[in-house]
Amino acid sequence: MVRAARGDRPETTPVWFMRQAGRSLPEYRATRAGVDMLEACLRPDLAAEITLQPVRRHAVDAAVFFSDIVTPVLLAGVDVTIVPGRGPVLAEPVRTASDVLALRPLDPAALQPIREAVALVVAELHETPLVGFGGAPYTLASYLVEGGPSKEQLRTRALMKTDPHTWASLLNWCADVTGAFIRAQVEAGASVVQLFDSWAGSLSRADYQRRVAPHTRRAFDALRGLEVPKIHFGLGLSEVLDLVPALGADVIGVDWRLPLDVAASRVGRPMPLQGNIDPALLTAPWPVLAAHIDDVLTRGADLPGHILNLGHGVPPETDPTVLTRIVEYVHDR
Amino acid sequence: MVRAARGDRPETTPVWFMRQAGRSLPEYRATRAGVDMLEACLRPDLAAEITLQPVRRHAVDAAVFFSDIVTPVLLAGVDVTIVPGRGPVLAEPVRTASDVLALRPLDPAALQPIREAVALVVAELHETPLVGFGGAPYTLASYLVEGGPSKEQLRTRALMKTDPHTWASLLNWCADVTGAFIRAQVEAGASVVQLFDSWAGSLSRADYQRRVAPHTRRAFDALRGLEVPKIHFGLGLSEVLDLVPALGADVIGVDWRLPLDVAASRVGRPMPLQGNIDPALLTAPWPVLAAHIDDVLTRGADLPGHILNLGHGVPPETDPTVLTRIVEYVHDR
Repeated sequence: MVRAARGDRPETTPVWFMRQAGRSLPEYRATRAGVDMLEACLRPDLAAEITLQPVRRHAVDAAVFFSDIVTPVLLAGVDVTIVPGRGPVLAEPVRTASDVLALRPLDPAALQPIREAVALVVAELHETPLVGFGGAPYTLASYLVEGGPSKEQLRTRALMKTDPHTWASLLNWCADVTGAFIRAQVEAGASVVQLFDSWAGSLSRADYQRRVAPHTRRAFDALRGLEVPKIHFGLGLSEVLDLVPALGADVIGVDWRLPLDVAASRVGRPMPLQGNIDPALLTAPWPVLAAHIDDVLTRGADLPGHILNLGHGVPPETDPTVLTRIVEYVHDR
Repeated sequence: MVRAARGDRPETTPVWFMRQAGRSLPEYRATRAGVDMLEACLRPDLAAEITLQPVRRHAVDAAVFFSDIVTPVLLAGVDVTIVPGRGPVLAEPVRTASDVLALRPLDPAALQPIREAVALVVAELHETPLVGFGGAPYTLASYLVEGGPSKEQLRTRALMKTDPHTWASLLNWCADVTGAFIRAQVEAGASVVQLFDSWAGSLSRADYQRRVAPHTRRAFDALRGLEVPKIHFGLGLSEVLDLVPALGADVIGVDWRLPLDVAASRVGRPMPLQGNIDPALLTAPWPVLAAHIDDVLTRGADLPGHILNLGHGVPPETDPTVLTRIVEYVHDR
């Protein structure tokens, strides 16, 4: 996995799944029973156990650190909870210049539970690498501004357009807390890092380039001096793939909308790509899914590196035996 | 509005708003108080009143028929309700070949309440045209397959990929019911028609072209012999704008992501466009919104026709005085 992320082609294509640690696994549901989501993220024993579960079960080529995009926001003192079935909800949304001024920096000491969890994971993983996990600044900011999940992020875009200075301050704060969060994971032993940008697909190219991209770059810059490959994954970013290399990413995650060979030509320079099985096909009969995997692998065959993954996270209702079968299929190919 | 839709440039740019008849208006909330959504759609007096409200208040250049995308589905005998705050919910989702076989055609007699409502509207509108309203087959099918609103339409895409024959039958049924629905509106007096495709942006270009576009064309074909301009609006369809003219559309609605001049170059042939004020800016200070409107008008100035609209529906929490001000601003320009 790390070799592929650095632009090599190992004997078998490495495979892991975004959101592999989570609700699709009965052992996850058992571990989480009665435990609040953010509590699970901050208890090193639980976060480590949940991170390891899909590695044990599926024999994937990477673990991904179990956490939530808002974990560093909570650690920076913002009152946020995860409401089951809904997502992150803030006690007080961040919408004005003074709201943004009131945000405090993340005290590095607060990241201790994260470092401990990562150390527990790495001690058990041996050869398998751990992918550090963080949210990209735009997605983080959209939760802060909306006060919770939002399909359209109207308030977020309104703030971006009407108060660019406050917007830039907010995005820098988001970049800094998520940057500190991923840096702590690498310092504790993560071998790769991925930033997730779930919502930036609602922006025009011009807004993405001017109002978002510099801050994502700032988040990646927090890893300066640490030699780990950096993966950028965004949903609905087909139109701006050419801008992603300049964010500082070494690998570009591609959602299911764009075939990998088309994505590669849009990126415009030879780079490893990650993706992009359509999660909708996880419920399809095996021959249909296998043909789709073959197609993804074929389209990725000429890339400098290819990490097989889904084009989005594992849906909670996924049959986990299908994921195991995908790993076996790719490794035996 | 009709002249612009036919490719002319009238003295002032016509303006109306998608979802202008709805929750942003206090008079709408009063009319709807205690009345179920689909009941309001099927009571001619209520549907007509609600359709007329924004014309009276804002002096927009078009009315849009108040209804729901699933209205024709209900009239075809499918058990569907609109759950407030959630959307259309089916008693039994349509997921298998036999589910699709069990769908019955829409009896034209069932459309009588629609014809009556349209006639009431047109009698009061005088010079202002009425835009007929219908859902595109993909969006309709996604509600049927998922059984309700769905962010990702995983089951819908799974059906499309695993059982193309059932998929085609289902999409044809959707095209036929929505086609009969818009045809009835035109026969009763609507001067323009718009199909809404809210969810097709989750598809790859290849899937859209092969598995969706022919059915949208079939829905528009239901208007054969009736001389009304046809508008196609889809969310997140930036990548397939060049395919929209072949659907039979005369006007292409553009969401807020793509500037109109860029959209025009993607369409690839001179066509009237509709759009595309970012709804997020409806909450911005007036100078910011006015500058944005100016930009949209400038980018639309060289089109063969331009109908000013939002890039998506009016958000329910919109201050309606802002909409009125936009109309005045555009008319006085």
